[in-house]
Amino acid sequence: MTYCVAMQLDAGMIFASDSRTNAGVDNIAKHSKMHQFVTPGERVIIILTSGNLSVTQNSISLLEQQARSNGDEPNIYNCTSMFDAATLLGESLREVKRRDGPTFMAHNIDANAGFIIGGQIKGERPRLFMLYNEGNFIESSPVTPYFQIGEVKYGKPIIDRVINSHTALSDAAKCTLVSFDSTMRSNLSVGLPIDMAIMETDALAIKSQRRIDESDDYFRMIHSTWGNGLRELFRQLPDPDWV
Amino acid sequence: MTYCVAMQLDAGMIFASDSRTNAGVDNIAKHSKMHQFVTPGERVIIILTSGNLSVTQNSISLLEQQARSNGDEPNIYNCTSMFDAATLLGESLREVKRRDGPTFMAHNIDANAGFIIGGQIKGERPRLFMLYNEGNFIESSPVTPYFQIGEVKYGKPIIDRVINSHTALSDAAKCTLVSFDSTMRSNLSVGLPIDMAIMETDALAIKSQRRIDESDDYFRMIHSTWGNGLRELFRQLPDPDWV
Repeated sequence: MTYCVAMQLDAGMIFASDSRTNAGVDNIAKHSKMHQFVTPGERVIIILTSGNLSVTQNSISLLEQQARSNGDEPNIYNCTSMFDAATLLGESLREVKRRDGPTFMAHNIDANAGFIIGGQIKGERPRLFMLYNEGNFIESSPVTPYFQIGEVKYGKPIIDRVINSHTALSDAAKCTLVSFDSTMRSNLSVGLPIDMAIMETDALAIKSQRRIDESDDYFRMIHSTWGNGLRELFRQLPDPDWV
Repeated sequence: MTYCVAMQLDAGMIFASDSRTNAGVDNIAKHSKMHQFVTPGERVIIILTSGNLSVTQNSISLLEQQARSNGDEPNIYNCTSMFDAATLLGESLREVKRRDGPTFMAHNIDANAGFIIGGQIKGERPRLFMLYNEGNFIESSPVTPYFQIGEVKYGKPIIDRVINSHTALSDAAKCTLVSFDSTMRSNLSVGLPIDMAIMETDALAIKSQRRIDESDDYFRMIHSTWGNGLRELFRQLPDPDWV
């Protein structure tokens, strides 16, 4: 399984993904699920992936290959809107499915894939999309300024309580790590390291990038402080008088 | 959807279920998902249900009808162990599936059902089981002294952080309500009222029973105090210095 989350805030965007992949509990590995397409001063596009690793990796490879082909066709490095970038990703996914889908079906293999794609291309505001298994996609809005893919439920309550589009980037990064901590506590299939990237609105560059593993002091502090704080908060809640 | 949770603690047991049922978002109703079979001083058996409402209601009705038939067959009111009670429930479920399953399949209807059954029969310790869609079941243990069915993920982190088998009943009731609050905040398909029943070990009677709706002062306090406390706890966490 996987957990990825991306937030589109007034101040900028945050992308985060875990790194655990598994084909059964006896076959666990680490693979980054974050892919970046950056031309400083011109575009920052970040893609997060969940689902069948061969399908998501192949979709990304096709995007990269297309960009290297030097043709006149639109690609991830020359498209002029994030909408076009999301469309290109959807087409890559569909191409992989056309090629591999019949074999998957013949062998009864679950080959679902999901993506978050977001960023900013010069001349356009930052935009964030979530792409479904069929290659269609939706865009975030200030009412719901975030998307999650993968194992989304454990980490959703804290995001719902804390995040709105005016949230500062530092608070959003903190909330993202609390959300990952809750998810990893309840689901073994999501694991460290966490890849996190932060971009400020109109900077057209990645401001901060971090790979958070077991030795990361800030994440360890979040883990213990949040856990202890929750238990203390719980302890302070009055008992029901009817028990 | 549904959310039900039951905990087996040294001090006793807690059972809680929401009351929202839906066949599509345009067909929402309230049905209790808690069923009690009590002979004071002799047995307390409580069943929580999730899934297709006709399947779960019919399974419970068969249990009740069997008990009224006055035959020599074992039934929910004369069985001598909670293991036998869980077996009877599994047989009821299988009977409903035998009768309705072919029609469900012909019309492509998802007729899954899940149950939690727990309580105490005189001469035996309290026991808690979770019953799967196929009628087979597992029993709780001190390592994991609770079961959830239905929309389980949003409300799991707080239980994992707070509950162990030594937890007091009042804390467990409080935790159960926090778990419901988190679930209802993130998932519309789980809704008030919450039915809650508490029994003490060896009392062979229900100690406390409560239907918690929008007007319940204690639940409203939990809802606002927990939400505000979480936001305050979050605010107090140090910011990352790398954003």
